[in-house]
Amino acid sequence: MPPGDDAAVVLVDQTPTVISTDVLVSGVHFRTDWADAYDIGRRAAAATLADLVAMGSQPVALVVALVAPAETESAWVMRLTDGLRDEADLVKASIVGGDISRGEQLSIAVTGVGSLRGDPVLRSGAVVGDYVAIAGRLGWAEAGLAVLTRGFGTPRALVQAYRRPEVDYALGLKAAAGAHAMCDVSDGLLADLGHIAVASDVSIDIDASSIEVAEPIASVASAYGMDPLMWVLGGGHDHAFAATFAPKKRLPKGLVKIGSVVERSEGAPSVTVDGRPWSGSSGHAHFRHREN
Amino acid sequence: MPPGDDAAVVLVDQTPTVISTDVLVSGVHFRTDWADAYDIGRRAAAATLADLVAMGSQPVALVVALVAPAETESAWVMRLTDGLRDEADLVKASIVGGDISRGEQLSIAVTGVGSLRGDPVLRSGAVVGDYVAIAGRLGWAEAGLAVLTRGFGTPRALVQAYRRPEVDYALGLKAAAGAHAMCDVSDGLLADLGHIAVASDVSIDIDASSIEVAEPIASVASAYGMDPLMWVLGGGHDHAFAATFAPKKRLPKGLVKIGSVVERSEGAPSVTVDGRPWSGSSGHAHFRHREN
Repeated sequence: MPPGDDAAVVLVDQTPTVISTDVLVSGVHFRTDWADAYDIGRRAAAATLADLVAMGSQPVALVVALVAPAETESAWVMRLTDGLRDEADLVKASIVGGDISRGEQLSIAVTGVGSLRGDPVLRSGAVVGDYVAIAGRLGWAEAGLAVLTRGFGTPRALVQAYRRPEVDYALGLKAAAGAHAMCDVSDGLLADLGHIAVASDVSIDIDASSIEVAEPIASVASAYGMDPLMWVLGGGHDHAFAATFAPKKRLPKGLVKIGSVVERSEGAPSVTVDGRPWSGSSGHAHFRHREN
Repeated sequence: MPPGDDAAVVLVDQTPTVISTDVLVSGVHFRTDWADAYDIGRRAAAATLADLVAMGSQPVALVVALVAPAETESAWVMRLTDGLRDEADLVKASIVGGDISRGEQLSIAVTGVGSLRGDPVLRSGAVVGDYVAIAGRLGWAEAGLAVLTRGFGTPRALVQAYRRPEVDYALGLKAAAGAHAMCDVSDGLLADLGHIAVASDVSIDIDASSIEVAEPIASVASAYGMDPLMWVLGGGHDHAFAATFAPKKRLPKGLVKIGSVVERSEGAPSVTVDGRPWSGSSGHAHFRHREN
């Protein structure tokens, strides 16, 4: 499989097994003064589970490698574990093992394995004529991060979206069952669709009118004098799923059509909005998902 | 399976899959001024591969989550990856994915999956009457660490054993195929046999005369005024395999018989040397494997 997919597929005794690892570092991916141990656990598990689901894989088990400063209280670690377990429970996966070491900076590496019925859904499967759809929210977590960064705690819905993403795993699996290509949106919609476009040697055009800007995002953007699309098109953290489908494929309920797969044209960006490069993209780097 | 085994077994589409994770942290498990990136990669992979093999599992694939300071050179990361890959090659396993994040302190979490023919070899399977045998070296890496800690670079064989353990995976798999119980020696022989004894509700008696102290270990211990058994019985890092076998079982070539499984007696230590608590054990904590 081409490198760059959300997870890898290996054969264990002829059985395709999907495996993915994600590491979250304190001060880089989370702040312990912005989220409690439970929510950090939820988020750490979600990052890995979403990667598995984005391949069309049913998650089975997680293992966790924790690095924690000596002063970390065992109660904190137990709450973290509670969060990891509760998130895994959402997809009937289990936390089956782990390792813990002391270290100066808290970090959590979560590795998951999952099963696969049929072929994995890769980034490279998009075909010209496919439509593009998303399952899940966009921009909520990034807007929540912007709120927290400015020292605020409301709107609560945004802040909570950053602390603990609400990933619709069931919808992701349903989407994967019929998708040509798929990934989870962790780097931002434009960036992640760009990964699909490059891997598939196509371009993707987004229909701006199909992109919904939720009310709390619009109001916070207005208050901060920002373009809300910066968060919606450029923000990560929500772990929505983006997928492409054959034109005649019936869209699973809950997915929203946002664009289409078109011929790649030399020199043009791999992702366009209404046929043109996105004008806001110059400011995009600032909002890039920082898990790279 | 009881907690505390080297790895967990999960069913992926009815196929038993063994999974284990280990995290190594700079300044805790390795020092970049004591070992180069390549050897650190070898060691990081070995820790996880040995855990899989200790369960009787053939390693299949590894994923790596790396946290590295911003100033880490890409050449260093590439050498680390070379080391990981070369160690995995020894058991025909592949590095199939990874994640990288910046962070203040270098750490490497390696997660492995493996296949399983037959039942996993657990720590809890030891039976009274079994004999105890080891596959691999004991004390070399710990003596090497003692050498480095004192600022020396020789004997080179010991220092190199610490930098890059030489794990006999093939012998480990051969041992596992006939063992009642098994683990890899990462916490020190006494501690790890103690894990087997407690999990199996038995005691283990080591025959001191069977414990070989290799020449470089003896000479360094003599130079430092130390008891070499502190390293041989208490040292980790070498990733030898310790296993118990039914009395009539023919010992695979390369394994060395070092003791036997006896009835647990109330109040007595779970592991004895020549029938008595090991007198050197009070100093053991100092030499404990620091990966806990």
